[in-house]
Amino acid sequence: GENTDFHALIPVVVRDKVLRPERTRQGGLGVAAALTLLSLLSLAGAVARWREEGRLAVWLHVPILQSRFAEAAASQGFAFHHAEEGSSTLTLWLGEGPSRLPGYATHQLGVAGAVLDESTGKVLVVQDRNKTLNAWKFPGGLSNPGEDIGDTAVREVFEETGIKSEFKSILSIRQQHQHPGAFGKSDMYIICRLEPSSFNISFCQQECLRCEWMDLMELVRTKDATPITSNVAKLLLYGYREGFDKIDITMREFPAVYTGRFYKLYHRELPESYRNIT
Amino acid sequence: GENTDFHALIPVVVRDKVLRPERTRQGGLGVAAALTLLSLLSLAGAVARWREEGRLAVWLHVPILQSRFAEAAASQGFAFHHAEEGSSTLTLWLGEGPSRLPGYATHQLGVAGAVLDESTGKVLVVQDRNKTLNAWKFPGGLSNPGEDIGDTAVREVFEETGIKSEFKSILSIRQQHQHPGAFGKSDMYIICRLEPSSFNISFCQQECLRCEWMDLMELVRTKDATPITSNVAKLLLYGYREGFDKIDITMREFPAVYTGRFYKLYHRELPESYRNIT
Repeated sequence: GENTDFHALIPVVVRDKVLRPERTRQGGLGVAAALTLLSLLSLAGAVARWREEGRLAVWLHVPILQSRFAEAAASQGFAFHHAEEGSSTLTLWLGEGPSRLPGYATHQLGVAGAVLDESTGKVLVVQDRNKTLNAWKFPGGLSNPGEDIGDTAVREVFEETGIKSEFKSILSIRQQHQHPGAFGKSDMYIICRLEPSSFNISFCQQECLRCEWMDLMELVRTKDATPITSNVAKLLLYGYREGFDKIDITMREFPAVYTGRFYKLYHRELPESYRNIT
Repeated sequence: GENTDFHALIPVVVRDKVLRPERTRQGGLGVAAALTLLSLLSLAGAVARWREEGRLAVWLHVPILQSRFAEAAASQGFAFHHAEEGSSTLTLWLGEGPSRLPGYATHQLGVAGAVLDESTGKVLVVQDRNKTLNAWKFPGGLSNPGEDIGDTAVREVFEETGIKSEFKSILSIRQQHQHPGAFGKSDMYIICRLEPSSFNISFCQQECLRCEWMDLMELVRTKDATPITSNVAKLLLYGYREGFDKIDITMREFPAVYTGRFYKLYHRELPESYRNIT
């Protein structure tokens, strides 16, 4: 019943100092943090005590089914830091001046694939269904959580066009803020160069109005393409004629210092003589 | 009082179809959406009706001070899509199969600056305070909301070291998933090439343990640097010796199709003859 809910204990993390994001391991509290269990009724008193003790910040993790705790916390000055699925995280800054707590994710990532058939000089293009202007563009879409850039390009190209391909390089990166549809957040949009390994188009009728292999020179010249598509088409033509090393931002894998995983680093090709310098 | 709160009206957006992110203007409902005002007491009945009507998805926008509405909605199957400051957004997928609703921002963006003094061949490096390993790295930090890549690099370099500089190019891009400190999200980390316009170091004692102009060859050779720093130092040496055009990913500005703003596109330099092709 209501009373039980009001006495439910919520985990609270109180910090003595601001931990920079890279120092805060997920789930770990660090040396300067203490975990407390609080009931809804004891929150106001606890906040007063933390202020007296000179604490810097408080983090609250509230399950969605106990969201009345978020309501009560808000009346004590807490605000949402982020929320996902069944859980929300609230913060209260107790230090001087504006909050120095690290923010949450600021960007969505979209990835498109410029799939060039080198034997014919044709490139794979689509027209989106339900767009106001029927402009040709490279197939692509939003990155799934945890998905690598090249994998998004290959997956989206396959889902939209039925063409199988392999990641070769990054060609361009665009950053836009307050992107329409990104819920007020920023958008990072990366176009990759892909090499096709199948050639028979079977495009998604839900997403695409048209899909075809178009001569690269025709894509460069058409007025029916978005500016970024025209521009990357010119870049691709330059690489096709004078060598892809002119345009490619290539990938190398390195072991990550903290996690033991591998990460992918993209930059201009570095000659062997410089890689092995000592 | 409690009764008034329970009868408070919450705006609800009901969608007939999934709108892809790029088609959903911020704040606009599109042709396939309807806005309804609901009280907490009428939610269960409304969800049953929407199911009968074959609706695809419902979006709820709940102010933090009315979070008991989120609690009630969760018991009807809603979950958090995202939350920020004083507001949360919940969704309920009513269509077949797994939800096809667009996700929220997946990446935080960190930007560092490799500031090279071409007259001396020295590069600006720091050692972070409170790091387990005292490795040299390029100064940098998290991007502020709405901040362009180059602006983050210039700001962070100035805040950490007191050095003023100008953005020249992007040198490298790294993507890491489940990044420590990114609250389970992914991290995009970009290193820019910057040109210094001041040279007297006045570094932030809170953030940095050491800060100096280091000979580029020394940075290439030292064991006391993170792998990504060593690698970008080699890349920078290559550019310094053989021309920055070998390593630079340069920036151009274009007008955005939908918003009327400008956006920045980063790619390899495109020769004039290809830019003006018709």
